Amino acid sequence: MEQEIKTQWLGNMLFNADTLGGNLKIDAAAEVGGEGKGVRPKALMLTSLAGCTGMDIVSLLKKMRAEVDDLDINVVGKLTDEHPKFYHEVNLEYIFYGKNLKKDKIEKAVQLSAEKYCGVMEMFRQFAKINTVIKYAEKKSS
Amino acid sequence: MEQEIKTQWLGNMLFNADTLGGNLKIDAAAEVGGEGKGVRPKALMLTSLAGCTGMDIVSLLKKMRAEVDDLDINVVGKLTDEHPKFYHEVNLEYIFYGKNLKKDKIEKAVQLSAEKYCGVMEMFRQFAKINTVIKYAEKKSS
Repeated sequence: MEQEIKTQWLGNMLFNADTLGGNLKIDAAAEVGGEGKGVRPKALMLTSLAGCTGMDIVSLLKKMRAEVDDLDINVVGKLTDEHPKFYHEVNLEYIFYGKNLKKDKIEKAVQLSAEKYCGVMEMFRQFAKINTVIKYAEKKSS
Repeated sequence: MEQEIKTQWLGNMLFNADTLGGNLKIDAAAEVGGEGKGVRPKALMLTSLAGCTGMDIVSLLKKMRAEVDDLDINVVGKLTDEHPKFYHEVNLEYIFYGKNLKKDKIEKAVQLSAEKYCGVMEMFRQFAKINTVIKYAEKKSS
C-alpha cells in the first residue's frame, strides 16, 4: 500500500502540509530562523509514535473488554548532539486512568502494540532505544 | 537535547497531541473504526520528513544565494503488507520553481540535506530505501 503527502513552501521556513486526514502548517522556531507559525517537523515523529501506539491500545482494550476512563501518552525523544540529529533514545510513558483497572490486559495491550502492531514503533526500533513505562491512576486531575 | 510531546485520548480513536509548536488532533479513518476528525498518525512520519528536508533546503539555498520562487516536496511511502506495517520504501520528489534556477546549487543543497543535516532522513535510512527525484519548472500553475 502506498501513502502520499504533499508539502508546499510558503516562504521563510514555513510549509503547508497536506497529510493524510488533514492539513497542517510546519515552521521552525524563531531562534533558528522561523516564525513559529506551525509545528516543528522532527517532533512529528514522536507524535506519530504516540498516535500509532495509542490507537492500537485503545482498540485492543476495547476488544479485551478492559476499557479505561482515560489514557495519556507522553513521549520524550533524546537527540544526538551532532548532525544529522536523530532520536537515539525514546521514553514512552503510558498513564492509564480508571478504577479497578485490568492491569494484566493493559500490559498485554501495550506489549502487543510494541511487538506486533505498531509500525511506527517498528521504525523507531531501527534507530532508537525505546524505554516504556506504564503508570496507573484512579482519576485524571482536571 | 530532549524533546517532549504529550497526547491525551479523547475517546474512540481520537487523540489530542501537544506537539512542539502547536496542537493537533489525530484520528483513524472511518474504515478502521475512527471518525476522521484528525490526521492519521503514521503519515506524520512522511510529513516530518518533508518538513525537515524542506527547511534544510530553503535555508541552504538562501545561504548559497540560489533562492527559488517556489518549492513543493511530495513524499510517497510504501508500506509493508504485514504487521507491523512500516514504510520500507520512500519516494521523495522535490519540485523547484523559478527562472534561471541555479541547478548545481539546488542539487548540492538537496544532497547536503540528505547526507549531512536532515535527522529525519537519517532515521528513515535505517528502515527504508529512499529514492530522490528533483524536478524543475518555471512557474507553479495556480
